[in-house]
Amino acid sequence: MSFAFKLLKTDARSGARLGVITTAKGEIPTPLFMPVATQGAIKAVEPERIAETGVRILLANAYHLHLKPGEDIVASQGGLHRFMNWPHLIITDSGGYQVFSLPKREIEEEGVRFQFEQFGKPVVLSPESSIAIQEKLGADIIMAFDECVAFPTPHAYAKQAMERTVRWARRCAAAHTRPDQALFPIVQGSTYADLRKDCAEALAELDLPGIAVGGLSVGEGLDVMREVLSYTVPHLPRDKPRYLMGVGLPEDILAAVEAGMDMSDCIIPTKYARSGMLFTAVGRLRITRPNYRRDKYPPDTDCPCYTCQHYTRAYLHHLFQADEILGDTLATIHNVHFYQRLMERIRQAIAEDRFLEFKREFLQGYQREDKKTKNVR
Amino acid sequence: MSFAFKLLKTDARSGARLGVITTAKGEIPTPLFMPVATQGAIKAVEPERIAETGVRILLANAYHLHLKPGEDIVASQGGLHRFMNWPHLIITDSGGYQVFSLPKREIEEEGVRFQFEQFGKPVVLSPESSIAIQEKLGADIIMAFDECVAFPTPHAYAKQAMERTVRWARRCAAAHTRPDQALFPIVQGSTYADLRKDCAEALAELDLPGIAVGGLSVGEGLDVMREVLSYTVPHLPRDKPRYLMGVGLPEDILAAVEAGMDMSDCIIPTKYARSGMLFTAVGRLRITRPNYRRDKYPPDTDCPCYTCQHYTRAYLHHLFQADEILGDTLATIHNVHFYQRLMERIRQAIAEDRFLEFKREFLQGYQREDKKTKNVR
Repeated sequence: MSFAFKLLKTDARSGARLGVITTAKGEIPTPLFMPVATQGAIKAVEPERIAETGVRILLANAYHLHLKPGEDIVASQGGLHRFMNWPHLIITDSGGYQVFSLPKREIEEEGVRFQFEQFGKPVVLSPESSIAIQEKLGADIIMAFDECVAFPTPHAYAKQAMERTVRWARRCAAAHTRPDQALFPIVQGSTYADLRKDCAEALAELDLPGIAVGGLSVGEGLDVMREVLSYTVPHLPRDKPRYLMGVGLPEDILAAVEAGMDMSDCIIPTKYARSGMLFTAVGRLRITRPNYRRDKYPPDTDCPCYTCQHYTRAYLHHLFQADEILGDTLATIHNVHFYQRLMERIRQAIAEDRFLEFKREFLQGYQREDKKTKNVR
Repeated sequence: MSFAFKLLKTDARSGARLGVITTAKGEIPTPLFMPVATQGAIKAVEPERIAETGVRILLANAYHLHLKPGEDIVASQGGLHRFMNWPHLIITDSGGYQVFSLPKREIEEEGVRFQFEQFGKPVVLSPESSIAIQEKLGADIIMAFDECVAFPTPHAYAKQAMERTVRWARRCAAAHTRPDQALFPIVQGSTYADLRKDCAEALAELDLPGIAVGGLSVGEGLDVMREVLSYTVPHLPRDKPRYLMGVGLPEDILAAVEAGMDMSDCIIPTKYARSGMLFTAVGRLRITRPNYRRDKYPPDTDCPCYTCQHYTRAYLHHLFQADEILGDTLATIHNVHFYQRLMERIRQAIAEDRFLEFKREFLQGYQREDKKTKNVR
């Protein structure tokens, strides 16, 4: 097992942690953010451009890749890294979150049965089959198959789903055979402190190389997320990387880091980019607005990314107005770079024991403009 | 005027010519092919990747850029080269072809009046306004405003349109003020030898730095195109670059070169790419076919392009099946590279007086597979 996490330090006045994940592919500092390549591609961008932004780990999805092109094809191509031309780290999500978002699905102790139109017959995903799929895909980090519940959910059902998630995590650990992959279990328990605590403690007993917090970013809002983290994080192992799944906007990520989380992923930077929404130090910029028609500045005047070094707001505005795919590409490169730079600055701030000051300064600048564009949340 | 053309040699057994265009930006060998960036962007690909394929000149469209974002905005951004981050040569088409494709338009001696939905009021394009637009866009080569007729067209109307095209070319030459731009007139005359001859001779009198043949690639087919070139090319100036507009498939380009044309442009390599059709040495490959699901080979096994060096047919198949934009990008890079490589090999063959042999060999390999995919023409 070549996966290791070292906690380098904790911020003096918050829960923010500085760490490093070491694998055979090298070291990656934490806190880190992972852009999402659901179907084995960061939408609209070549992997080299993603690596240029500093990204060294991205998230792909076992559920989507199981349906298309199928894990056997990926395996026959030498695994996901070679298939998608990404030599750095990959994490695959187990499919739990996706399956539980489907309208028609039956949850049993064995697993989940659901329909997929193109197949014509029911698909069953279970802890064992999810691990088998993820082993064939060959990511560096794989996720346990969990039951994610909606927000809000009554305590009784949240408890049942949480306990099943623990049993399934044990089955995942038992089924997992590839020593070169790190398996992370996922803490569930909805918005209930007792359930989150019980789940975290039960999963910690498995002594797996990392641990994730799931069931957030499902519409509960930043305040609730913050509260859930406040009573969940204390029960997570201190010496393991802590991964907050599906989060989020820059302000959410700052809250997650402050609470002591080390990793997160989200479709926001890439998805927003494709709708013409760019993240900048002074807030979000909706490039399709008419006032950018003649704007000679780069999207973010202080950004060293490929897009900002070579193109103006007027050009990006034109690309979006003219439905040119290149607009999606350039906006995505910028947003992914913006998130990487945010994480770099977060790490620097933690190293210097000034995370809270950094957070305040960043949000002061960032939220100035944000009010104008809040309708896109 | 920094534009010069030198004819280096003519193939011993065909009309194929080897030449070089010299501008302040350096030398570009002919015959050359230009990919199309209609709206100021090669669809789905960053300009650097296009330059990597060897492209040093591309075609943009004055009509489209006039409508969006408008030539004044492009000019205020430092011109089209800076706007679209393309430091090499650009040629703009005058808009003649586009305007004559519109359903509602009125042609008068002054110019053409047409409706553009988003503007609400009629737009008028004339020789003078087309030149003014193209001067503001700032391309290296600009085109005279012509009247392109449909195929087939009666002799009487083709004659009237051809004569107007000549009068308009004179007005374009008179209106043109930027000495750093080369203006090319366009030979019209439909499929009538007398009209093509009269037009070519009248335009040659203007002594402009190059000359184009228009009104082809409008559905007449390869045999008719070949015939038109056979009676048109002999009347074109020998010492000027000859540009065949809107052509075409590899076999069409070979025919154009054989007839003595030096330049061409077409949307085919980029447009076909976005529908999953890849050009290879053994014919066109429709990557969406099920037989490529597990195919571990690069799209073209003998191709040094970025796509073929990093991705398999199975991955491209997956990207198209999964509607991933990256599929468009990778396919476009390959097709643009394929065309550049074809032109390189054509130039090499002319240099060695074996153009006809090369053409035969190329088509033997290329047309083997082509039969299967002819339905996509």
